[in-house]
Amino acid sequence: MVCSIAGTLEAIGDRWAFLVLRDLSLGLTRYEEFQRSTGMPPNTLAARLRHLEANGLIARHLYSAHPPRHEYRLTPKGRDLQPAIVAMLEWGDRWQASGADASPLELYDRNTGRRVKLAFIDTETGEAIPQDRLAPRPGPGADAMVVWRLTQKTRREAGVPDSPSEGSKR
Amino acid sequence: MVCSIAGTLEAIGDRWAFLVLRDLSLGLTRYEEFQRSTGMPPNTLAARLRHLEANGLIARHLYSAHPPRHEYRLTPKGRDLQPAIVAMLEWGDRWQASGADASPLELYDRNTGRRVKLAFIDTETGEAIPQDRLAPRPGPGADAMVVWRLTQKTRREAGVPDSPSEGSKR
Repeated sequence: MVCSIAGTLEAIGDRWAFLVLRDLSLGLTRYEEFQRSTGMPPNTLAARLRHLEANGLIARHLYSAHPPRHEYRLTPKGRDLQPAIVAMLEWGDRWQASGADASPLELYDRNTGRRVKLAFIDTETGEAIPQDRLAPRPGPGADAMVVWRLTQKTRREAGVPDSPSEGSKR
Repeated sequence: MVCSIAGTLEAIGDRWAFLVLRDLSLGLTRYEEFQRSTGMPPNTLAARLRHLEANGLIARHLYSAHPPRHEYRLTPKGRDLQPAIVAMLEWGDRWQASGADASPLELYDRNTGRRVKLAFIDTETGEAIPQDRLAPRPGPGADAMVVWRLTQKTRREAGVPDSPSEGSKR
Protein backbone atom coordinates (compact mmCIF):
# COMPACT_ATOMS: atom_id res chain seq x y z
CA MET A 1 0.00 0.00 0.00
CA VAL A 2 1.47 3.35 -1.04
CA CYS A 3 0.62 5.40 2.06
CA SER A 4 2.71 7.42 4.49
CA ILE A 5 0.23 6.75 7.30
CA ALA A 6 0.30 2.97 6.79
CA GLY A 7 4.10 3.10 6.63
CA THR A 8 4.29 5.00 9.89
CA LEU A 9 1.90 2.61 11.65
CA GLU A 10 4.00 -0.31 10.43
CA ALA A 11 7.24 1.26 11.69
CA ILE A 12 5.69 1.80 15.12
CA GLY A 13 4.15 -1.66 15.33
CA ASP A 14 1.26 -1.66 17.76
CA ARG A 15 -0.20 -0.05 20.85
CA TRP A 16 2.36 -1.61 23.17
CA ALA A 17 5.19 -0.25 21.06
CA PHE A 18 3.56 3.18 21.07
CA LEU A 19 3.49 3.13 24.89
CA VAL A 20 7.21 2.30 24.92
CA LEU A 21 7.81 5.31 22.65
CA ARG A 22 5.75 7.42 25.07
CA ASP A 23 7.92 6.20 27.97
CA LEU A 24 11.15 6.89 26.07
CA SER A 25 9.94 10.41 25.31
CA LEU A 26 9.38 10.88 29.07
CA GLY A 27 12.94 9.82 29.92
CA LEU A 28 12.62 6.09 30.67
CA THR A 29 15.39 4.02 29.06
CA ARG A 30 15.55 0.59 30.69
CA TYR A 31 13.75 -2.67 30.18
CA GLU A 32 12.64 -2.81 33.83
CA GLU A 33 11.31 0.74 33.62
CA PHE A 34 9.19 -0.02 30.54
CA GLN A 35 7.90 -3.14 32.22
CA ARG A 36 6.90 -1.30 35.35
CA SER A 37 5.39 1.57 33.41
CA THR A 38 3.34 -0.48 30.93
CA GLY A 39 2.78 -3.81 32.67
CA MET A 40 3.69 -5.56 29.41
CA PRO A 41 4.43 -9.29 29.42
CA PRO A 42 8.24 -9.76 29.13
CA ASN A 43 8.15 -11.53 25.75
CA THR A 44 5.91 -8.83 24.29
CA LEU A 45 8.19 -6.08 25.57
CA ALA A 46 11.32 -7.76 24.19
CA ALA A 47 9.64 -8.26 20.79
CA ARG A 48 8.45 -4.64 20.63
CA LEU A 49 11.91 -3.31 21.52
CA ARG A 50 13.42 -5.45 18.75
CA HIS A 51 10.82 -4.17 16.29
CA LEU A 52 11.45 -0.52 17.18
CA GLU A 53 15.22 -1.06 16.93
CA ALA A 54 14.91 -2.85 13.56
CA ASN A 55 12.89 0.12 12.28
CA GLY A 56 15.49 2.62 13.46
CA LEU A 57 13.26 4.33 16.04
CA ILE A 58 15.38 3.36 19.05
CA ALA A 59 19.03 2.40 19.61
CA ARG A 60 20.68 0.31 22.30
CA HIS A 61 23.53 1.71 24.40
CA LEU A 62 25.72 -0.27 26.80
CA TYR A 63 25.53 1.23 30.29
CA SER A 64 27.25 -1.57 32.21
CA ALA A 65 30.04 -3.79 30.89
CA HIS A 66 30.09 -6.41 33.70
CA PRO A 67 27.48 -7.76 33.40
CA PRO A 68 26.60 -6.28 29.97
CA ARG A 69 23.41 -4.21 30.33
CA HIS A 70 21.74 -2.08 27.69
CA GLU A 71 19.52 0.91 27.79
CA TYR A 72 17.38 2.24 24.98
CA ARG A 73 17.18 5.75 23.56
CA LEU A 74 15.13 7.35 20.83
CA THR A 75 17.01 7.99 17.60
CA PRO A 76 16.29 11.26 15.72
CA LYS A 77 13.79 9.22 13.67
CA GLY A 78 12.08 8.04 16.86
CA ARG A 79 12.12 11.50 18.47
CA ASP A 80 10.43 12.83 15.36
CA LEU A 81 7.30 10.88 16.35
CA GLN A 82 6.72 13.41 19.14
CA PRO A 83 3.90 15.18 17.24
CA ALA A 84 2.08 11.84 16.85
CA ILE A 85 2.49 11.12 20.56
CA VAL A 86 1.27 14.60 21.50
CA ALA A 87 -1.68 14.36 19.09
CA MET A 88 -2.80 11.19 20.91
CA LEU A 89 -2.25 12.87 24.29
CA GLU A 90 -4.28 15.95 23.39
CA TRP A 91 -7.17 13.91 21.98
CA GLY A 92 -7.26 11.74 25.11
CA ASP A 93 -7.40 14.89 27.24
CA ARG A 94 -10.14 16.50 25.16
CA TRP A 95 -12.31 13.36 25.12
CA GLN A 96 -11.67 12.17 28.69
CA ALA A 97 -9.96 8.97 27.58
CA SER A 98 -7.27 9.04 30.26
CA GLY A 99 -9.12 7.29 33.06
CA ALA A 100 -8.66 10.41 35.24
CA ASP A 101 -10.94 13.44 35.68
CA ALA A 102 -8.29 15.86 34.47
CA SER A 103 -5.11 15.81 32.35
CA PRO A 104 -2.50 13.45 33.80
CA LEU A 105 0.28 15.24 31.90
CA GLU A 106 0.85 18.77 30.62
CA LEU A 107 3.32 19.96 28.01
CA TYR A 108 5.03 23.29 28.41
CA ASP A 109 7.77 25.38 26.85
CA ARG A 110 10.85 25.13 29.07
CA ASN A 111 11.91 28.65 28.06
CA THR A 112 8.67 30.38 29.07
CA GLY A 113 6.81 27.87 31.26
CA ARG A 114 3.69 28.38 29.13
CA ARG A 115 1.54 25.54 27.77
CA VAL A 116 2.24 24.23 24.27
CA LYS A 117 -0.19 22.55 21.89
CA LEU A 118 -0.32 21.19 18.36
CA ALA A 119 -1.89 23.28 15.63
CA PHE A 120 -2.25 23.28 11.88
CA ILE A 121 -0.33 26.18 10.39
CA ASP A 122 0.25 27.64 6.93
CA THR A 123 3.75 26.49 5.91
CA GLU A 124 4.57 29.93 4.46
CA THR A 125 3.01 32.42 6.87
CA GLY A 126 2.85 30.37 10.10
CA GLU A 127 -0.79 31.42 10.50
CA ALA A 128 -2.97 28.89 12.39
CA ILE A 129 -5.44 27.17 10.04
CA PRO A 130 -8.77 25.78 11.34
CA GLN A 131 -9.11 22.06 10.71
CA ASP A 132 -12.21 22.46 8.51
CA ARG A 133 -10.14 24.39 5.96
CA LEU A 134 -7.79 21.42 5.46
CA ALA A 135 -8.14 19.48 2.22
CA PRO A 136 -6.10 16.62 0.71
CA ARG A 137 -4.78 16.40 -2.84
CA PRO A 138 -2.61 13.83 -4.62
CA GLY A 139 1.11 14.47 -4.18
CA PRO A 140 3.93 13.59 -6.60
CA GLY A 141 4.11 10.05 -5.13
CA ALA A 142 0.40 9.25 -5.56
CA ASP A 143 -0.52 5.96 -7.22
CA ALA A 144 -3.88 4.97 -8.76
CA MET A 145 -5.27 3.91 -5.37
CA VAL A 146 -4.43 7.25 -3.71
CA VAL A 147 -6.17 9.07 -6.56
CA TRP A 148 -9.14 6.67 -6.29
CA ARG A 149 -9.50 7.36 -2.54
CA LEU A 150 -9.42 11.11 -3.10
CA THR A 151 -11.95 11.10 -5.94
CA GLN A 152 -14.31 8.36 -4.80
CA LYS A 153 -16.59 10.69 -2.80
CA THR A 154 -17.14 12.90 -5.88
CA ARG A 155 -17.61 9.85 -8.09
CA ARG A 156 -20.11 8.29 -5.66
CA GLU A 157 -22.07 11.52 -5.31
CA ALA A 158 -22.20 11.90 -9.09
CA GLY A 159 -23.45 8.31 -9.44
CA VAL A 160 -20.45 7.22 -11.53
CA PRO A 161 -19.93 3.44 -11.21
CA ASP A 162 -16.42 2.19 -10.47
CA SER A 163 -14.76 0.39 -13.33
CA PRO A 164 -13.68 -3.05 -12.06
CA SER A 165 -9.96 -2.61 -12.68
CA GLU A 166 -9.61 0.98 -11.49
CA GLY A 167 -7.98 1.48 -8.14
CA SER A 168 -7.59 -2.23 -7.58
CA LYS A 169 -3.79 -1.93 -7.55
CA ARG A 170 -2.44 -2.14 -4.02
CA MET B 1 -3.50 2.85 33.32
CA VAL B 2 -4.14 6.57 33.85
CA CYS B 3 -2.86 7.89 30.51
CA SER B 4 -4.49 9.97 27.77
CA ILE B 5 -2.27 8.35 25.13
CA ALA B 6 -3.19 4.80 26.18
CA GLY B 7 -6.86 5.80 26.27
CA THR B 8 -6.67 7.22 22.76
CA LEU B 9 -4.91 4.12 21.40
CA GLU B 10 -7.60 1.96 22.99
CA ALA B 11 -10.42 4.03 21.46
CA ILE B 12 -8.83 3.71 18.01
CA GLY B 13 -8.15 -0.01 18.34
CA ASP B 14 -5.36 -1.01 16.00
CA ARG B 15 -3.62 -0.24 12.71
CA TRP B 16 -6.51 -1.49 10.61
CA ALA B 17 -8.93 0.76 12.44
CA PHE B 18 -6.55 3.67 11.96
CA LEU B 19 -6.56 3.07 8.20
CA VAL B 20 -10.37 3.12 8.22
CA LEU B 21 -10.22 6.48 10.02
CA ARG B 22 -7.79 7.69 7.36
CA ASP B 23 -10.23 6.60 4.64
CA LEU B 24 -13.18 8.28 6.36
CA SER B 25 -11.19 11.50 6.62
CA LEU B 26 -10.60 11.29 2.85
CA GLY B 27 -14.33 10.94 2.11
CA LEU B 28 -14.87 7.18 1.91
CA THR B 29 -18.01 6.05 3.74
CA ARG B 30 -18.99 2.56 2.63
CA TYR B 31 -17.96 -0.93 3.64
CA GLU B 32 -16.99 -1.85 0.06
CA GLU B 33 -14.87 1.29 -0.22
CA PHE B 34 -12.93 0.53 2.96
CA GLN B 35 -12.41 -3.01 1.78
CA ARG B 36 -11.08 -1.92 -1.59
CA SER B 37 -8.91 0.79 -0.05
CA THR B 38 -7.36 -1.29 2.74
CA GLY B 39 -7.60 -4.88 1.50
CA MET B 40 -8.79 -5.89 4.97
CA PRO B 41 -10.38 -9.32 5.49
CA PRO B 42 -14.19 -8.86 5.79
CA ASN B 43 -14.44 -10.10 9.38
CA THR B 44 -11.63 -7.80 10.46
CA LEU B 45 -13.23 -4.81 8.78
CA ALA B 46 -16.65 -5.52 10.33
CA ALA B 47 -15.08 -5.90 13.78
CA ARG B 48 -13.09 -2.65 13.45
CA LEU B 49 -16.17 -0.71 12.33
CA ARG B 50 -18.08 -2.04 15.34
CA HIS B 51 -15.22 -1.05 17.63
CA LEU B 52 -15.02 2.49 16.21
CA GLU B 53 -18.80 2.86 16.48
CA ALA B 54 -18.84 1.55 20.07
CA ASN B 55 -16.18 4.13 20.95
CA GLY B 56 -18.17 6.97 19.38
CA LEU B 57 -15.65 7.75 16.62
CA ILE B 58 -17.99 6.85 13.75
CA ALA B 59 -21.77 6.68 13.28
CA ARG B 60 -23.90 4.66 10.88
CA HIS B 61 -26.39 6.34 8.56
CA LEU B 62 -28.99 4.58 6.43
CA TYR B 63 -28.52 5.49 2.77
CA SER B 64 -30.87 2.92 1.25
CA ALA B 65 -34.08 1.60 2.81
CA HIS B 66 -34.77 -1.33 0.43
CA PRO B 67 -32.54 -3.16 0.95
CA PRO B 68 -31.29 -1.45 4.14
CA ARG B 69 -27.70 -0.25 3.56
CA HIS B 70 -25.57 1.81 5.88
CA GLU B 71 -22.73 4.17 5.38
CA TYR B 72 -20.29 5.38 8.01
CA ARG B 73 -19.26 8.91 8.90
CA LEU B 74 -16.86 10.39 11.40
CA THR B 75 -18.48 11.89 14.49
CA PRO B 76 -17.00 15.13 15.88
CA LYS B 77 -15.01 12.90 18.25
CA GLY B 78 -13.67 10.93 15.29
CA ARG B 79 -12.94 14.03 13.19
CA ASP B 80 -10.94 15.36 16.12
CA LEU B 81 -8.35 12.63 15.48
CA GLN B 82 -7.27 14.53 12.35
CA PRO B 83 -4.09 15.87 14.02
CA ALA B 84 -3.06 12.31 14.92
CA ILE B 85 -3.69 11.16 11.34
CA VAL B 86 -1.72 14.09 9.93
CA ALA B 87 1.14 13.55 12.39
CA MET B 88 1.47 9.98 11.07
CA LEU B 89 1.26 11.23 7.48
CA GLU B 90 3.96 13.85 7.95
CA TRP B 91 6.33 11.44 9.69
CA GLY B 92 5.86 8.89 6.91
CA ASP B 93 6.67 11.57 4.35
CA ARG B 94 9.76 12.79 6.23
CA TRP B 95 11.16 9.29 6.74
CA GLN B 96 10.19 7.76 3.39
CA ALA B 97 7.81 5.23 4.91
CA SER B 98 5.17 5.53 2.20
CA GLY B 99 6.51 3.02 -0.29
CA ALA B 100 6.75 5.81 -2.91
CA ASP B 101 9.64 8.14 -3.73
CA ALA B 102 7.62 11.26 -2.92
CA SER B 103 4.56 12.26 -0.87
CA PRO B 104 1.45 10.35 -2.02
CA LEU B 105 -0.80 12.99 -0.44
CA GLU B 106 -0.53 16.71 0.31
CA LEU B 107 -2.61 18.80 2.68
CA TYR B 108 -3.52 22.34 1.77
CA ASP B 109 -5.71 25.19 2.97
CA ARG B 110 -8.81 25.32 0.73
CA ASN B 111 -9.01 29.10 1.25
CA THR B 112 -5.47 29.88 0.05
CA GLY B 113 -4.28 26.73 -1.74
CA ARG B 114 -1.08 26.82 0.35
CA ARG B 115 0.39 23.80 2.14
CA VAL B 116 -0.53 23.20 5.77
CA LYS B 117 1.50 21.37 8.42
CA LEU B 118 1.37 20.53 12.11
CA ALA B 119 3.43 22.58 14.53
CA PHE B 120 3.85 23.05 18.26
CA ILE B 121 2.66 26.49 19.27
CA ASP B 122 2.47 28.53 22.46
CA THR B 123 -1.17 28.35 23.58
CA GLU B 124 -1.16 32.06 24.52
CA THR B 125 0.87 33.77 21.81
CA GLY B 126 0.51 31.29 18.91
CA GLU B 127 4.30 31.40 18.43
CA ALA B 128 5.81 28.21 16.96
CA ILE B 129 7.86 26.33 19.56
CA PRO B 130 10.76 24.04 18.53
CA GLN B 131 10.24 20.49 19.71
CA ASP B 132 13.39 20.47 21.86
CA ARG B 133 11.85 23.17 24.08
CA LEU B 134 8.90 20.92 24.97
CA ALA B 135 8.86 19.43 28.46
CA PRO B 136 6.26 17.37 30.33
CA ARG B 137 4.98 17.97 33.85
CA PRO B 138 2.30 16.25 35.94
CA GLY B 139 -1.19 17.62 35.35
CA PRO B 140 -4.08 17.80 37.83
CA GLY B 141 -5.09 14.23 36.88
CA ALA B 142 -1.66 12.66 37.49
CA ASP B 143 -1.48 9.53 39.62
CA ALA B 144 1.59 8.02 41.35
CA MET B 145 2.63 6.20 38.16
CA VAL B 146 2.56 9.35 36.04
CA VAL B 147 4.73 11.12 38.61
CA TRP B 148 7.05 8.10 38.76
CA ARG B 149 7.50 8.14 34.95
CA LEU B 150 8.30 11.84 34.96
CA THR B 151 10.79 11.65 37.81
CA GLN B 152 12.45 8.33 37.12
CA LYS B 153 15.17 9.76 34.87
CA THR B 154 16.26 12.20 37.59
CA ARG B 155 16.05 9.47 40.22
CA ARG B 156 18.09 7.07 38.09
CA GLU B 157 20.74 9.67 37.31
CA ALA B 158 21.01 10.54 40.99
CA GLY B 159 21.39 6.84 41.86
CA VAL B 160 18.27 6.77 44.06
CA PRO B 161 16.90 3.21 44.26
CA ASP B 162 13.18 2.71 43.66
CA SER B 163 11.22 1.76 46.71
CA PRO B 164 9.40 -1.51 45.95
CA SER B 165 5.87 -0.14 46.44
CA GLU B 166 6.34 3.22 44.76
CA GLY B 167 4.85 3.58 41.32
CA SER B 168 3.60 0.03 41.26
CA LYS B 169 -0.03 1.21 41.10
CA ARG B 170 -1.39 0.75 37.59
